[in-house]
Amino acid sequence: MRIDKQQCAERLLAHDEFTVLSHEHPDGDTLGCAFALCAALKMLGKKREFRCGDTVPHDFSFLTDGFRNDEVHHPYVVAVDVADPGLLGSLRAEYGDKVDLCIDHHPSNTLYAKETLLEERAAAAEILYELMPLLGVEPDRYIRECIYTGVSTDTGCFRYPNTTPASFRIVAELTEKGIDSRTINKLMFETRTKSFLALELLARKTLEYHCDGRCAIITVTNDMFRESGSDESECTPITALPRQIEGVRVGAVFKQKPDGTFNVSVRTDGDIDASAICKKLGGGGHRGAAGCSVDDYEDGKARLLTEIAAALNAQ
Amino acid sequence: MRIDKQQCAERLLAHDEFTVLSHEHPDGDTLGCAFALCAALKMLGKKREFRCGDTVPHDFSFLTDGFRNDEVHHPYVVAVDVADPGLLGSLRAEYGDKVDLCIDHHPSNTLYAKETLLEERAAAAEILYELMPLLGVEPDRYIRECIYTGVSTDTGCFRYPNTTPASFRIVAELTEKGIDSRTINKLMFETRTKSFLALELLARKTLEYHCDGRCAIITVTNDMFRESGSDESECTPITALPRQIEGVRVGAVFKQKPDGTFNVSVRTDGDIDASAICKKLGGGGHRGAAGCSVDDYEDGKARLLTEIAAALNAQ
Repeated sequence: MRIDKQQCAERLLAHDEFTVLSHEHPDGDTLGCAFALCAALKMLGKKREFRCGDTVPHDFSFLTDGFRNDEVHHPYVVAVDVADPGLLGSLRAEYGDKVDLCIDHHPSNTLYAKETLLEERAAAAEILYELMPLLGVEPDRYIRECIYTGVSTDTGCFRYPNTTPASFRIVAELTEKGIDSRTINKLMFETRTKSFLALELLARKTLEYHCDGRCAIITVTNDMFRESGSDESECTPITALPRQIEGVRVGAVFKQKPDGTFNVSVRTDGDIDASAICKKLGGGGHRGAAGCSVDDYEDGKARLLTEIAAALNAQ
Repeated sequence: MRIDKQQCAERLLAHDEFTVLSHEHPDGDTLGCAFALCAALKMLGKKREFRCGDTVPHDFSFLTDGFRNDEVHHPYVVAVDVADPGLLGSLRAEYGDKVDLCIDHHPSNTLYAKETLLEERAAAAEILYELMPLLGVEPDRYIRECIYTGVSTDTGCFRYPNTTPASFRIVAELTEKGIDSRTINKLMFETRTKSFLALELLARKTLEYHCDGRCAIITVTNDMFRESGSDESECTPITALPRQIEGVRVGAVFKQKPDGTFNVSVRTDGDIDASAICKKLGGGGHRGAAGCSVDDYEDGKARLLTEIAAALNAQ
């Protein structure tokens, strides 16, 4: 069932122990939301633990340093920025059908939770920010930095078309009250590790064009991760690259997983629906950015290209 | 002499014919300011011409399409975002000592104009935006897009540390009233031409580290422009690259000019003063981003490295 912000705040205020879940391959928005919520619950004198199916990348240590889970016995389970129980990853078996409340901004949310606060916003962190006054919480610097991390990362630092006046207004307030956006931006958007630069050079050699140059595909394999000393957590800028090339309307990146299968990220110019393309292959997401998984590279690429060509030709 | 915004508006309202000057190698801020000002003057029934020492890059055709200079006979000369008469390039001889009014945000402004409105803001376009109500001009969509172009490009799309709450608030207003930020962002920040990608690969091969990895230098030569089919106008992302590498505090890019000499761009983490380094070589700019010119590559690099090492060791 869908609920509004006021009802959501009431649910949070009514419980005393919480498990807060982020999605697998955690990004700035799911982590910003989770740690902002944990901090707010703590300020309200409640107990909370954070759980995620994957290890939190080192880049986010400015959010996780000093964080300790409380011991919780009968938690109210809240998933943040998790559109589908499958995205809980290794926590799916434990929590997939036990999520009491989901706070999310993905239109593709399957409403799997008992109750869902769903608003189509640039970032789920914007919803979290607007929940704070309803919880009676005045965001401190840490919460502000959590929110900034969510909004800035999910908008590509305010560059993606999902950015709204509300995103800018929220960030104006956050920066006015004081955050270290310089350090956060440096970590999230600027710093390129030597291993990333090596990976990017290898990946760019795989660049191939399809559909008369309207589609570009890059492939990242486990061999490349090994050779560069990089890993999946550094792939985000590569994911964005194919669609950024002039004339390309649909970009896709195949990223090999340790088990040899592939995660596929699809980015479009927004006129083409990436989410619809990925749904055909069992995935989902947003209009401009979506994803799916395929077991076999050649077969998966052929199926994806069929869907992309159909979407391009329907224009 | 320095004047404030109110006085600046009075000067603009008091004259009827204007020449509006942008700096050489024009960027989004100097062009956004110039065309916003021209549009505002036109709305006030005044005559204005735009002049720049270099051709406006094709990327900015969304600002220049349909623009026609008026015939002006006794112009009041306004330079926007031009810190030094030298930056007028080929127009220096004609206008260097004839600038009546300069509107700028560079602390290094030499106050060469008869009167100067100087505020240390993220972009000169922010100052232009705040001048509009003082001129009695309600910015239309075109002016809003000019301002957005200036603010977004000079802040690296809100990623650089110069971005302030005021930048976010102005852009919240601009986007709320309606601009095509999607198209502007795509042109300014997202689209990578095939020629740029080729140039970047060539340039990255020149990457060298100095000062124990705290300084990185990339060199772009005329041969690379020829081989890639790219040119100087596509160098901005390369300019940013060296400083973005982990551990690098000062990045420099040497870009060869058609005459064989080099423009040098220096970027720092902000703790090191790029402007002070460049001043030693006859240049200037901001604390985090500055530039200078050198005639000889090896000699220029040696002198620059001496200054960079001194700045790093003084920390």
